[in-house]
Amino acid sequence: MNVDYINPFLTSTISVFQTMLQCKLERGTPYLKNGAQAKQEVSGVIGLSGKAQGIVVLGLSRDAALGVAESLLQERPTEINADVTDAVGELVNIIAGSAKAKLEHLNMSVSLPTVITGKGHSVEFPTKVTPICIPFLSPWGEITVEVGLCEHGAETAVAAKGM
Amino acid sequence: MNVDYINPFLTSTISVFQTMLQCKLERGTPYLKNGAQAKQEVSGVIGLSGKAQGIVVLGLSRDAALGVAESLLQERPTEINADVTDAVGELVNIIAGSAKAKLEHLNMSVSLPTVITGKGHSVEFPTKVTPICIPFLSPWGEITVEVGLCEHGAETAVAAKGM
Repeated sequence: MNVDYINPFLTSTISVFQTMLQCKLERGTPYLKNGAQAKQEVSGVIGLSGKAQGIVVLGLSRDAALGVAESLLQERPTEINADVTDAVGELVNIIAGSAKAKLEHLNMSVSLPTVITGKGHSVEFPTKVTPICIPFLSPWGEITVEVGLCEHGAETAVAAKGM
Repeated sequence: MNVDYINPFLTSTISVFQTMLQCKLERGTPYLKNGAQAKQEVSGVIGLSGKAQGIVVLGLSRDAALGVAESLLQERPTEINADVTDAVGELVNIIAGSAKAKLEHLNMSVSLPTVITGKGHSVEFPTKVTPICIPFLSPWGEITVEVGLCEHGAETAVAAKGM
């Protein structure tokens, strides 16, 4: 497996959850995401651009989103409000920022994050890009990090070869 | 009104719809988006980064998303499928790309687009950024373009002053 592009996102997620939330994640096996879309309730989305263009999506259940916000704010929000979406946006921002720092040769910078809420929404990547989904087991159940990167001129997913 | 940042997105949207879809849009009055979120069914989202960080969201009803895809593909999809999400993603990509070219001093580049589908989803910006929403009247009803930009070091929305 070509881990050059995926490993930075994997290790950053684990380390950011550990540092910011004192939360230990157990990593699952990354897989190519195609066809069926995960239907999470809260998705943190951030773009990357530079010598490659990309997207990172942090997918959380309602319970995981509330748990993340509780860990950050030391108080449990009662609903998915602006505190929760800000917490999720900040988390995906730091994960992507930390990962791109490890991919220095791509010279990427991050956009602003957005956070999508709503039961049964799905986040679709362009069909030319096959994102890689990294599942993690958290205290609040499974969370996912999806990464799609496209080097300029390349029409294929990162790290797809050899996975 | 400080139109330096918003006008490029406004004029690009009109010109991209005209050129790519042969569709004439009528512009409404831009407003600051805060609090209540639009609940569109399909949202094209793309990030911008460089000397400013930003997000552009193209919000469409189901009917508008199908109409956009029909204009591009010369055939009407029967549902919100990958053809539709690719069409919406490409559209927001070209709108953002064309607008950022007019904001040369910010030296921004675009990320990959994602397209969010699902009834009643909402796209939340970080609370530190107050996005500006530009409504347009299309043959398929109202569509919206929301833009949030944050210059490095600035904690406020673009063009908020004086609107």
